[in-house]
Amino acid sequence: MSEETPRLIPRLRLKSGDTIALGPGKAQLLELIQQHRSISAAARALKMSYRRAWLLVNTMNTCFQKPLVLTATGGNQGGGAELSEEGLKVLTLYRQYEKAIAKRPELADLEALLSGPHTPSA
Amino acid sequence: MSEETPRLIPRLRLKSGDTIALGPGKAQLLELIQQHRSISAAARALKMSYRRAWLLVNTMNTCFQKPLVLTATGGNQGGGAELSEEGLKVLTLYRQYEKAIAKRPELADLEALLSGPHTPSA
Repeated sequence: MSEETPRLIPRLRLKSGDTIALGPGKAQLLELIQQHRSISAAARALKMSYRRAWLLVNTMNTCFQKPLVLTATGGNQGGGAELSEEGLKVLTLYRQYEKAIAKRPELADLEALLSGPHTPSA
Repeated sequence: MSEETPRLIPRLRLKSGDTIALGPGKAQLLELIQQHRSISAAARALKMSYRRAWLLVNTMNTCFQKPLVLTATGGNQGGGAELSEEGLKVLTLYRQYEKAIAKRPELADLEALLSGPHTPSA
């Protein structure tokens, strides 16, 4: 493909009933929690309120059999957090899933039909 | 898989720059336009304003090299509409893409980690 080919970026959401169990935002939040070992630091990195980050974590923890995020002290913003074994597994599977989707021939076929080139912002 | 296995439904959006060129809602709109041969009838079927449906069509028509939706008389709500050859191709590719994604092993692995069973509403 030439460098002029406009790009289509697939974004994957996984719904469990009416709830989005996992998607690009939640996956990034998991990644940042693991990186910063803190929900509040992850929230700051995403310019998101602690409350919103906590609600997203809570949704994920509820959707899966075991919590994806473990906190050292429940409800204490300074207590530290990390991904559980389950959380690491879910994040890894989601990233693998994204990569597999990006390699599908349908994506290249759809990209070839795009007008462009587009310059993605940021 | 047992019938008790909770289900994860993948939802795919395709971004071109900052714009969602195609996603579940736009694909459904294309399908209904083709079915009803009318943007306004498709909008009604989706309980969506004609204006919103028109804007979604306009976004798609702009994202792709050729318009996906052709209207008999521009701007006239009663003029009738149908998918172009390009529109039919894009819709078919998107549905194939969705099917391929639903068969990925990562989805089954993630489903196995879900709490449940969930009863999807509707």
